[in-house]
Amino acid sequence: MKTIKASIIGFGSIGQGVARVLLAKKDYLNKEGIDIKVIAVTDSKGSAVDENGLNLEKCLAVKAEKGTVADKPGMTGLDVINQIDHDLVIEVTPTNINTGGDGLINMRAAFEHKKDVVTSNKGPLALKFKELTKLAEQNGCHFKYEATVGGAMPVINLMRDGMAGNEIESVKGIFNGTCNYILTRMHEEKSNYSEILTEAVDLGIAEADPTYDVEGIDTAGKIVILANAVFGMDKTIADVERTGITKITYEALEMSARSGKTIKLIGEIKKDGSLSVAPRLVPVGHPLSVSGTLNAASIQTDLAGEITVTGKGAGSVETAGSILSDIISIYRDN
Amino acid sequence: MKTIKASIIGFGSIGQGVARVLLAKKDYLNKEGIDIKVIAVTDSKGSAVDENGLNLEKCLAVKAEKGTVADKPGMTGLDVINQIDHDLVIEVTPTNINTGGDGLINMRAAFEHKKDVVTSNKGPLALKFKELTKLAEQNGCHFKYEATVGGAMPVINLMRDGMAGNEIESVKGIFNGTCNYILTRMHEEKSNYSEILTEAVDLGIAEADPTYDVEGIDTAGKIVILANAVFGMDKTIADVERTGITKITYEALEMSARSGKTIKLIGEIKKDGSLSVAPRLVPVGHPLSVSGTLNAASIQTDLAGEITVTGKGAGSVETAGSILSDIISIYRDN
Repeated sequence: MKTIKASIIGFGSIGQGVARVLLAKKDYLNKEGIDIKVIAVTDSKGSAVDENGLNLEKCLAVKAEKGTVADKPGMTGLDVINQIDHDLVIEVTPTNINTGGDGLINMRAAFEHKKDVVTSNKGPLALKFKELTKLAEQNGCHFKYEATVGGAMPVINLMRDGMAGNEIESVKGIFNGTCNYILTRMHEEKSNYSEILTEAVDLGIAEADPTYDVEGIDTAGKIVILANAVFGMDKTIADVERTGITKITYEALEMSARSGKTIKLIGEIKKDGSLSVAPRLVPVGHPLSVSGTLNAASIQTDLAGEITVTGKGAGSVETAGSILSDIISIYRDN
Repeated sequence: MKTIKASIIGFGSIGQGVARVLLAKKDYLNKEGIDIKVIAVTDSKGSAVDENGLNLEKCLAVKAEKGTVADKPGMTGLDVINQIDHDLVIEVTPTNINTGGDGLINMRAAFEHKKDVVTSNKGPLALKFKELTKLAEQNGCHFKYEATVGGAMPVINLMRDGMAGNEIESVKGIFNGTCNYILTRMHEEKSNYSEILTEAVDLGIAEADPTYDVEGIDTAGKIVILANAVFGMDKTIADVERTGITKITYEALEMSARSGKTIKLIGEIKKDGSLSVAPRLVPVGHPLSVSGTLNAASIQTDLAGEITVTGKGAGSVETAGSILSDIISIYRDN
């Protein structure tokens, strides 16, 4: 049994999801020869630390009761990474697509301290992919980020391992569940964008300020990560040609439907290096014509043809599950 | 560089696809540290053998010209396996779902001679999965069969590796492209089963005797393999409750469409051990509502929710690509 000392940096819905999944999958992990001992949990107020291993059930209860897990107020994620001996940083702080935010600072520090990183935090990867992967490599660290693209959808690992031998020619997909929900509901309800946006905000599917989703910024961040991770490109979000869904009308959806098509916000990476996000027509019956909040990625390959994977793009347990798969892939004996 | 001596047993469309893929991907394989040297190719008439490595381009040309690759007439796959020193048997003889056919005999012999097996041959696995996997294990052999289920669709490897940490609760999917094609075209053309079957036979999508596909036998074989491989069950094709598509009418498809649904031949494995193949309603916009000859598998998991993978279920290059992925996964240094 390998004991892995880990920190959970960020204890919002995803961080708590990770704690729940680690509790639920303890036996499974042990069977794989992995014992994850969480020695620190950090939220915006501070940290809880126990070098012998925290009781995660207690952490979740304290967080629910007091709104923070911190018994060391003011101790940041960066402090935990810099000061406490451990092996793995689970970086799940809120993402910042403009600066990389705390996530970028935390990941840099983790690698400098020879710690592995598993993350769902898109911002740092969409901005500084090359720098971070190089830092990880130079320090002999594992760096895994399946959860940054498509939540539960195992798209990066599938392209890297599941389709070995194939050359990947292009990738296009639906990488934002909020946009997919809005477009699906507009058609179902014969309603315009603004009405369905209100519904989506009420349901918690869209943020009060939905810009990040509906203008395609979130999608752009994800295709940048895929372009860099899978195609070995060196892109940032500024390289993406981008159009959102705010100008799509119900009439456009209805007209498309009459010719057997639907409109989806599609992010696309071509091998020539062009990256785009735009509303596109998709034939009904095509694997990308999935509705609701689903995400989907179609991978065009030289041998297998087009392979599509579809799944929930968000959700705390789903994302935590993706983080767990990454953890297992690092520490499992092969 | 690891040199792997291999035989290709069966040199129909899939065997020839394997030869083409091995030629096209020689550099790729070398970069992965793998050198595949094919020392024997066998078809129904006999074998070509060269212990220093056959020229596969020449084998393909000879096959095209003379209809057989055999320069040793009458030398069977079993002879090659029993008599010639090599590491890997690529077993791609025609499948026989009733007896296991030559494939079963070849696989048993391969393991007894400590040879690894990669195959697309469903019959032996649908009938004797436990026996074969046990034989492989006892002899320390690798046994990989991604191509037996869903051609190019990486469903077995995805469930085993890509979604590590997840418990798989059920699998349902479209595992037969011929049936999917017939149902799709019946609806598009407002035609009945028999008319579209004729079209499918003309196009080479259905066999002259389509029983194996349209009665769900092929689908049943595939879900048996998945049930055994992924759920660790001990099923054979006799355990599958099975209904085909021959009684579906155009009117049924039209009526379903009016309520936003489509009819697909669905194979399903439940955790309780029940296996079924039957026409089922699928909502338009669901990941299983794909049309044409596509295959799709929806995997219900405890953490990731429902993940669906879609791709071409057949085709010689697609199937050969899947065989190549398996070969790489065995011999690549990890």
